[in-house]
Amino acid sequence: MLKRFNTSIILVIILLPLIWLNALLFSLVVGGFLLIASYELFKMLQVRYPLHPAYLFLYAGFNGLIYAGFILYLNGVITGLFFVNGLLLSIGLVMAYSVFSVHSFTYFGSALILSIFFSIAFGSISFIQSLGTTVILYVLLVTMLSDVFAYLVGVPLGKHKLAPRVSPKKTIEGLVGGIVGAVSVATLYVWIIDVPFPFDPPLSIFAIIIISFFVSLAGQLGDLVASKIKRDYDIKDFSNIFPGHGGILDRFDSTLFASFILVIVFIMIG
Amino acid sequence: MLKRFNTSIILVIILLPLIWLNALLFSLVVGGFLLIASYELFKMLQVRYPLHPAYLFLYAGFNGLIYAGFILYLNGVITGLFFVNGLLLSIGLVMAYSVFSVHSFTYFGSALILSIFFSIAFGSISFIQSLGTTVILYVLLVTMLSDVFAYLVGVPLGKHKLAPRVSPKKTIEGLVGGIVGAVSVATLYVWIIDVPFPFDPPLSIFAIIIISFFVSLAGQLGDLVASKIKRDYDIKDFSNIFPGHGGILDRFDSTLFASFILVIVFIMIG
Repeated sequence: MLKRFNTSIILVIILLPLIWLNALLFSLVVGGFLLIASYELFKMLQVRYPLHPAYLFLYAGFNGLIYAGFILYLNGVITGLFFVNGLLLSIGLVMAYSVFSVHSFTYFGSALILSIFFSIAFGSISFIQSLGTTVILYVLLVTMLSDVFAYLVGVPLGKHKLAPRVSPKKTIEGLVGGIVGAVSVATLYVWIIDVPFPFDPPLSIFAIIIISFFVSLAGQLGDLVASKIKRDYDIKDFSNIFPGHGGILDRFDSTLFASFILVIVFIMIG
Repeated sequence: MLKRFNTSIILVIILLPLIWLNALLFSLVVGGFLLIASYELFKMLQVRYPLHPAYLFLYAGFNGLIYAGFILYLNGVITGLFFVNGLLLSIGLVMAYSVFSVHSFTYFGSALILSIFFSIAFGSISFIQSLGTTVILYVLLVTMLSDVFAYLVGVPLGKHKLAPRVSPKKTIEGLVGGIVGAVSVATLYVWIIDVPFPFDPPLSIFAIIIISFFVSLAGQLGDLVASKIKRDYDIKDFSNIFPGHGGILDRFDSTLFASFILVIVFIMIG
């Protein structure tokens, strides 16, 4: 229990000063995090199939390209066509490359999905910060509060396991408690601070509640997805860059999923 | 050898009357092919993990949505943002769903890449046909000629294996022969028929040679990728819908990859 809160506090201490950077510097820092995450994913993929370490550079570079492409696309620097194309072309190239490899196609498919998803999720964090410090604070607030409320509600009231194979302690009651708690506080926060969501006219309170619901749900599911991936490769943590608390992907799993969904919501209704 | 040519002839007999359909009817027919292909992929995925047959409808519907979305997007009916979003959201949803499943994350990742790639490849075929009958004929010509020339050159001259683990008979000499033969004839075809590629001003002969090079290469690699996927799941053919010649995906593998690449080229330089 203490560990859970400690972790949140460490996250805050690391992230908080960073989010006041200007958008370009922030995106470079997050890009750096993505490179570390690429290393973590690469090391994980090596659990199954030993890959020559030189491929790490290729893998990290590939992720960096998707990351940069997604941000440039969201900022209107490159067109959607160009971005979709790059993404599709990379899928085609990886499929073609798989032909000359000893590794199974399944292996390449899953490595590719991890690349695409996480690169775009890191890109989402950068994009959200570029909208304003209070917007990225909103995401951090929702994911942290979801975690705290899920714990506070789940421990005394939790009866129905949420996903026992992946995370034996999580319960449906905790999930619901996390959502209700996070949505309530976050909605209040958005209302008081007047968070600059990119909508004109501004969102109604009802819309903010709906959005916060999806962000909280995504954050809590992200935690489970990360556990599921780790279980698949029989690793406990992605790395040990935060001693005792795991790697970048362990610490930012909820934030990554929550940001990813928030950007999708922005685009869908924006 | 006879089988190879027979197959090409069967392909021609099935496809040729269809390509004169109007774009909407053609895209419905190709959509029907995609549904059969979805069944083939689903059956293949079941080799590893038995899935409840009801999921076939979900899987086919998912593929159909990507297919329709891609065509609508290429025709400007929905925006790139909307299409990218749908694609990303589906990746997120599948990842989240994986948490509640007994199957490994790797399994979901590879199933998802197969869905995305093939649905978009079928969409590419429909889009190319909508540009004109002579444009889709161009793709069929390149893939068939690549096949024929690869055989005619590879059998007498082939010395260096191309991808021995996947397709023991294919050689680098055959690949090159296929490209040279197909590019030569296809370029002549484009020049004589004045194929309506979607470019203004029209492409130079040099550009058409470069494009035909990539289409021929993609077609030949597509054949290998299909073999690689089948090998991964220990199946010989995707199905037996063309008795003695395999399934939709066995017969259209080259055409699917070639169309996919041609659409990417269209968008990149268009």
